[in-house]
Amino acid sequence: MSLSLPEEIFQQLQSLRLIDPHTHINPHQPASRCLADILGYHYYTELAHSAGLAKSQIEEPGLDSREKVRRLVPWLATIENTAQYSWLLEMCREFFGFQEERITPSNWESLYESSKTRMAQPDWEQHVLNQSGLDQVYLTNDFDDPLEGFDRNFYVPCLRTDDLVFHLCRPAVRERLTKATGASPGSARALKDAIGLLFQHFKNRNARACAISLPPDFSPQPVSEAVADPLVARAFAGADLTADELVSLSRFVFWTLAEFCDQFQFPFDLMIGVNRRVCENGVFQGQDLFDSRVSLIQYKTLLNAFPRVLFPISVLAETSNQELVSYAWIFPNVITSGHWWYSNIPVFIERDTKARLQAVPSTKQIGYYSDMYKLEFALPKFAMYRRILAKVLAEDFVIGRRWGVERALELGRQVLRGNVETIFGGSDA
Amino acid sequence: MSLSLPEEIFQQLQSLRLIDPHTHINPHQPASRCLADILGYHYYTELAHSAGLAKSQIEEPGLDSREKVRRLVPWLATIENTAQYSWLLEMCREFFGFQEERITPSNWESLYESSKTRMAQPDWEQHVLNQSGLDQVYLTNDFDDPLEGFDRNFYVPCLRTDDLVFHLCRPAVRERLTKATGASPGSARALKDAIGLLFQHFKNRNARACAISLPPDFSPQPVSEAVADPLVARAFAGADLTADELVSLSRFVFWTLAEFCDQFQFPFDLMIGVNRRVCENGVFQGQDLFDSRVSLIQYKTLLNAFPRVLFPISVLAETSNQELVSYAWIFPNVITSGHWWYSNIPVFIERDTKARLQAVPSTKQIGYYSDMYKLEFALPKFAMYRRILAKVLAEDFVIGRRWGVERALELGRQVLRGNVETIFGGSDA
Amino acid sequence: MSLSLPEEIFQQLQSLRLIDPHTHINPHQPASRCLADILGYHYYTELAHSAGLAKSQIEEPGLDSREKVRRLVPWLATIENTAQYSWLLEMCREFFGFQEERITPSNWESLYESSKTRMAQPDWEQHVLNQSGLDQVYLTNDFDDPLEGFDRNFYVPCLRTDDLVFHLCRPAVRERLTKATGASPGSARALKDAIGLLFQHFKNRNARACAISLPPDFSPQPVSEAVADPLVARAFAGADLTADELVSLSRFVFWTLAEFCDQFQFPFDLMIGVNRRVCENGVFQGQDLFDSRVSLIQYKTLLNAFPRVLFPISVLAETSNQELVSYAWIFPNVITSGHWWYSNIPVFIERDTKARLQAVPSTKQIGYYSDMYKLEFALPKFAMYRRILAKVLAEDFVIGRRWGVERALELGRQVLRGNVETIFGGSDA
Repeated sequence: MSLSLPEEIFQQLQSLRLIDPHTHINPHQPASRCLADILGYHYYTELAHSAGLAKSQIEEPGLDSREKVRRLVPWLATIENTAQYSWLLEMCREFFGFQEERITPSNWESLYESSKTRMAQPDWEQHVLNQSGLDQVYLTNDFDDPLEGFDRNFYVPCLRTDDLVFHLCRPAVRERLTKATGASPGSARALKDAIGLLFQHFKNRNARACAISLPPDFSPQPVSEAVADPLVARAFAGADLTADELVSLSRFVFWTLAEFCDQFQFPFDLMIGVNRRVCENGVFQGQDLFDSRVSLIQYKTLLNAFPRVLFPISVLAETSNQELVSYAWIFPNVITSGHWWYSNIPVFIERDTKARLQAVPSTKQIGYYSDMYKLEFALPKFAMYRRILAKVLAEDFVIGRRWGVERALELGRQVLRGNVETIFGGSDA
Repeated sequence: MSLSLPEEIFQQLQSLRLIDPHTHINPHQPASRCLADILGYHYYTELAHSAGLAKSQIEEPGLDSREKVRRLVPWLATIENTAQYSWLLEMCREFFGFQEERITPSNWESLYESSKTRMAQPDWEQHVLNQSGLDQVYLTNDFDDPLEGFDRNFYVPCLRTDDLVFHLCRPAVRERLTKATGASPGSARALKDAIGLLFQHFKNRNARACAISLPPDFSPQPVSEAVADPLVARAFAGADLTADELVSLSRFVFWTLAEFCDQFQFPFDLMIGVNRRVCENGVFQGQDLFDSRVSLIQYKTLLNAFPRVLFPISVLAETSNQELVSYAWIFPNVITSGHWWYSNIPVFIERDTKARLQAVPSTKQIGYYSDMYKLEFALPKFAMYRRILAKVLAEDFVIGRRWGVERALELGRQVLRGNVETIFGGSDA
Repeated sequence: MSLSLPEEIFQQLQSLRLIDPHTHINPHQPASRCLADILGYHYYTELAHSAGLAKSQIEEPGLDSREKVRRLVPWLATIENTAQYSWLLEMCREFFGFQEERITPSNWESLYESSKTRMAQPDWEQHVLNQSGLDQVYLTNDFDDPLEGFDRNFYVPCLRTDDLVFHLCRPAVRERLTKATGASPGSARALKDAIGLLFQHFKNRNARACAISLPPDFSPQPVSEAVADPLVARAFAGADLTADELVSLSRFVFWTLAEFCDQFQFPFDLMIGVNRRVCENGVFQGQDLFDSRVSLIQYKTLLNAFPRVLFPISVLAETSNQELVSYAWIFPNVITSGHWWYSNIPVFIERDTKARLQAVPSTKQIGYYSDMYKLEFALPKFAMYRRILAKVLAEDFVIGRRWGVERALELGRQVLRGNVETIFGGSDA
């Protein structure tokens, strides 16, 4: 049977090896060990919880892996329609040879056993990487991560800074900072110096970017050291800050990060729009939502102030995509980056991809990242993106613009891989 | 001729009998009596008015039905492109045997006559219900509706509460409350008791839900009885309240409704986003619009406070759909509900349907309701939805996911009917 | 080879001659003189700048045209994917006989020469107009434009009023007003009188509309002369106004414009949503962006106050389109107008076109305007729109509604041309 044009392009895109520029992989335990590691991903636990499974059933202390899966499986019937379920099925088929249409209470046990056997093979991690075509996997590391004990050319460190910007008033965060830098800053300058040590630590260990997720109401502004001094002093003395003071302190730290990104030549990944703990009784990592009333105009001052810093920007609300496209079309330092979280389903990816390809320079688009916690997820997530990208390339470029297939593929390769290399500094793998 | 895949699925979906979970039907006069009842629907009068027909021509006191139709018909030429017009044509074809492509000044009279003859048949209501495949029709009842004189197992009552939450300062509303409950509350507690009587009255008469439409700036919060006491006392004494006090009173009443929904096990239909009387000289029911700057984050406190209450949520702005999808994906008590008003046209329905089917558990989606004022409208409105649903099932599931047709149909049946039964308590018809 | 249905409709739409109802053409130099005039369009300079070309390279004082093109051409490789590039290629093919797939450093010189030769022909302007099928071109004129020295029946004047509403505190703007009207207003009444003279001047010279672009936070309200008097006096005395006073003055002038639109029977084009100078170091005309948090509810008072004034409204954010559709569906005086700037790419045009055709009276839609600075751009921009319109007519009307092709074409002709004539007063060409 001859392939349709989108299928032909998809097949070609599938053969491309990848760099995954944003994940939450633990490099010391990158692959899953059993089905509970996969089904324990918050996408499944939160959907099962949403459909009716009690949180206490999912998060019971000491819960055995097998029992956890047994409790989750019956609820899969309620989410078979979802994109998330299609990833699950694709993983089970591709990695574990699962042949059935659904995972049910009557067939999950054999799947559990067969998958566990495969995952217990010593080369499982390498097997998954090979089958997924991954050349490099970027991490998201706490600021005090020692970054030791793994191959940093393959698992590339990235400095995650949410805690520094938003949680410096938590004693545990300050203690971690002190432990990592030897400093307990009593002034704005001292805090800057400590943060500089973190950047140096990460730079020395092959880090390629600084990253942060930001709530919808955040708006970066410079804060003078004079204003920041007493806030830093009081925060590190354990005093409570007012809401306004917390905003100033966050802005001061954030601006400091941008300055170091400039100095260390790190792209600064901005993931804009998440409200934390909206669903208070949600499952682990399944409590965050958003407020679509956010605008990139809030970042005007920042984007103008740091022309040499590249800002790969992800937006959580699909209603923000046109702003992202337009800001990337105008600002030399704005990069469109992936399809994040609640926007990571086909209907939104397709439209966002079309808009970006129609209006942003091809060099300024990072097509996709997996955001995964376990390696097995890269394969189905990137396959979802590649199917959509193939459809858009077929419809808008080969048919709509009369491009040859090879030329369309070049564009696909650029947003899938080429730009990741040019923006973050290339693959050393 | 062989059917296309979407057509095949559509044909199958058409054979499914329905429960319409939200209408404005008057159960004492559910069907139209002449074409003026159909063309008098605000969708037509407001579009004709928008195109240039004077309001005074449409709303002239004592206007004869036939003359009203005569005045409206010439303006239909300006709205033949609209989805609303396609409903009109489908009704005329399906119910009255109309064969022509357009309704014009030269052919409307025979249509008027033939339709009037049919509508005058004693079994017209039953005929429409049969042809439309309706097993049950949910109503929207004023809080003081006696709910007598009709088959409450077929026309299912629903407690509409806009007046209680937003218009308690109108003397007529308070009088209606007093008449319905015997109470003239002078305290927060007494008002709660009166509202409890309304719930009991509705529960006793087979009501299945409480419902309300809400402006974009509304944000539910609990209000203590201590705060509410003087507001209730002054409101029922006929005093004017300040804007802030009105907000507090609205919040108090709204929260009370949610408490009774919990107690009486009523789902609480929230229809979020309408601004009333924006077009001040618009025709009857054709004055309301919206402000798309609204977020479900405004409902965070409510959704967390009432985990046992189901909230079927309709949003007016299509820009709110992704939030609705995401909140339904995370919150166990959030249900996606239909395609409301300005979002009830194919381009928005298709996209919203795709997003919901891709990311919300299949058990938590109410596919469609007609919102109709006269029974004849269920047929074309549901047909519009079924065509779109068939297209999405064909493209995203049969083709995209390689599901069998029957499996896709199961999903279609669930969102079209099955979930209405499980969420509102099943059909007794 | 037989044409597909969309292609068949497109071919028919292509034969339709047009009126372009909104451009920035200079009637004294309407066509390009060399490729630099085309590549100097901000769409190309800002994209090249965004991709990495230094502003100083583009805007070097005294830069030779040929050298400017030479510097821009290498950057075209980075924007070949964009819709804007497709316009460029279509212009080069249609007007200059360019045959290659791309414009590159190795082929641009022959293109430059051949195009220069063609553009130097004395009938170039007429040739472009003929080939583009343009019957009339609407201008955007400064309030002090003498409107002399060109054919005002072909190049139709339009009064652009941004300076009056937002920049009256700039000495240069006040001087221009004084020069144009002989007045240096010291009171609200005197300012009104001066503005009235401008309207009379434009009306006498065949102007057909008043137009303005508006920032997202603007909300028109009436301001009494008593309030405006001291603001006008101080502004014209060169005093500084506070931010609140500037808002009041802007509102006073804006409301005055609406009053004169009513008196002179001018439609008032509102182009809603632009933030000026967001990208501070952007290239000329490539600095403006937007904040999608805007609502037409801000225009409620205006739309109700001037029922006889037609308001063709363009929105910058595609997230505003549903509001525009809904307001045009309800308000008799709201017209949907074109696809503006950041929304002028296929993915947004298609969706916005579908929504408008599905829900707004066909008489109230201005399908497209080019917004061009040079005549050559009408051809590719209108062709882009016509392709999308043909696709929508084919899918939603011929297939979806079973209309005949001719009937669908009638609808297409109405939104492409017919409504421009009825709304702005017809063609005198």
